[in-house]
Amino acid sequence: MSAARYDVLGIGNAIVDVIARAEEDFLLAQGMRKGGMMLIDEARAHAIYDAMGPAIETSGGSAANTIVGLASLGARSAFIGKIKDDLLGRAYSHDIRAAGVNFATKPAIDGPSTGRCYVLVTPDGERTMNTYLGAAQDLHPGDIDAEAIAASAVVYLEGYLWDPKNAKEAFLKAAKIAHDAGRKVALTLSDAFCVDRWRDEFLQLMRSRTVDLIFANEAELHSLYQSSDFDAAIAALRADIEVAVVTRSEKGCLVVGPDDIEAVPAFPVDRVVDTTGAGDLFAAGFLCGLARGADDRTCGRLGALAAAEVIQHIGARPEASLKDLARENGLLD
Amino acid sequence: MSAARYDVLGIGNAIVDVIARAEEDFLLAQGMRKGGMMLIDEARAHAIYDAMGPAIETSGGSAANTIVGLASLGARSAFIGKIKDDLLGRAYSHDIRAAGVNFATKPAIDGPSTGRCYVLVTPDGERTMNTYLGAAQDLHPGDIDAEAIAASAVVYLEGYLWDPKNAKEAFLKAAKIAHDAGRKVALTLSDAFCVDRWRDEFLQLMRSRTVDLIFANEAELHSLYQSSDFDAAIAALRADIEVAVVTRSEKGCLVVGPDDIEAVPAFPVDRVVDTTGAGDLFAAGFLCGLARGADDRTCGRLGALAAAEVIQHIGARPEASLKDLARENGLLD
Repeated sequence: MSAARYDVLGIGNAIVDVIARAEEDFLLAQGMRKGGMMLIDEARAHAIYDAMGPAIETSGGSAANTIVGLASLGARSAFIGKIKDDLLGRAYSHDIRAAGVNFATKPAIDGPSTGRCYVLVTPDGERTMNTYLGAAQDLHPGDIDAEAIAASAVVYLEGYLWDPKNAKEAFLKAAKIAHDAGRKVALTLSDAFCVDRWRDEFLQLMRSRTVDLIFANEAELHSLYQSSDFDAAIAALRADIEVAVVTRSEKGCLVVGPDDIEAVPAFPVDRVVDTTGAGDLFAAGFLCGLARGADDRTCGRLGALAAAEVIQHIGARPEASLKDLARENGLLD
Repeated sequence: MSAARYDVLGIGNAIVDVIARAEEDFLLAQGMRKGGMMLIDEARAHAIYDAMGPAIETSGGSAANTIVGLASLGARSAFIGKIKDDLLGRAYSHDIRAAGVNFATKPAIDGPSTGRCYVLVTPDGERTMNTYLGAAQDLHPGDIDAEAIAASAVVYLEGYLWDPKNAKEAFLKAAKIAHDAGRKVALTLSDAFCVDRWRDEFLQLMRSRTVDLIFANEAELHSLYQSSDFDAAIAALRADIEVAVVTRSEKGCLVVGPDDIEAVPAFPVDRVVDTTGAGDLFAAGFLCGLARGADDRTCGRLGALAAAEVIQHIGARPEASLKDLARENGLLD
């Protein structure tokens, strides 16, 4: 196995976030599930956009946010995801490259426009997401850069990739290339409703050792095992995967390994402004620690630190240098 | 004169802000004048964008920001400005309409894309702007809705309209319609370098009574009279216009009328995050007071309050309800 060129390469849906504040009543009137991510078609995208308040646009996408977080922490990172060559797609490419990420996926020339997620942020800071996949629908195995994947210490995949029609093939191709090159494969379960759509396939990915590490929050874990018994779900998880990281919002996280479980506290925050990207940035911190060979506790602390930064402002990408923050907190050299 | 349908109708360049944080060194390396607004062509726009960091996109444009601020204060408002029918243009229309503003200018079907301003925010919160006018270049007299203008108590125009080739004709047409209908015409001088480009024409607008009220900051005032003597510039101003409002950042503002000068303090702020829109929102508050027949001091306080809100977050449009803020401060019923 040769030395890795990238610490982490992420594959995910390339999505521009369209973020607006909204009251709880708006979610009710629109039939949205608070805190969740719903897939929507173009007509519904127009209807939601027409009804929602003034917005800002910022590059997003779950795995992409994680990869940008890794770059902010000083890790070498790359991303594969599908945009269209339109104004939003060009902004997307700009933002991810300007963050220091290698991004070379060929944009679509025709077909649907760059994907968007209409994010409604309620006064409590919770985000409710409505995703129009757009061009992300067209990620296919041909977009997988085998050489870059074989040269990455970890390949990080999002569960949301199970939604577009050809992306799961791209996902499986990438996982095989990574394992053939002796690399690790990590997966985030993404969202409880995503788990509900693809439960059997996600369990199969874990049990077949197609993935080596998973990230899940409590709702995703309960959805995966269709159980409200947390301890039972954790026990099931240990049997199904080598390492799992279970995030629990303000309660911190559990790093669940074959031999023990490490509980790591959250970082205190002054005020939660917008939780968009909390899980994504947690994964960034954790994977950064992993790439540096840190212990479970340090990996968890790095995750907590990155998540704490992103929930204190609007948008799912870091505004401060996470590397500087991590150094100030004694978590990176 | 019939009752007004709108308190204020604004005419300005419709521009999407592309906002990124930058260090002072970046401004130096790019030859930018800190705190100013430079007009750039498409090639320069690409060069700046390639060099700058990850950005967020948010609707902007000086007069448009003012009009959105007025809507947030509960005033009835309308805007005329030129976008293209592209992804950014559609976001622009969405945002201004979702804020409660009447916006009916026909978008361009071909020609340059929707205008952009590349805004670099330095650690001190100061913003440096680089504007690619794009579709805003094509605002022409045919875009002026005579009926809407005649039905607006105040028509508010930005000095920046002197830059696009046909917009000054549109400006003059609007001012004539307004005066013929017995309405007031207000102008912001926009930027010291804009004043430098159009000094004689701006003075002519004032002296010919084409405008009744102007907004200027200290730099614009000094540029207008090519004088560093503040008191002399104020004396010259009194001779040239009925009412002028001179903003002085943290020193508050002066309302300069024919008979007296009222000094109004600024609102204290915890932390200046991004000064983009400070002058625009000051004008919003002031014009809101004017529309309600408030005294100079209350108008100035409303301006200071709106400016204070917008400089405490990224972007040039209010995030909180200015009406609620004004009520909490006893400035609106």
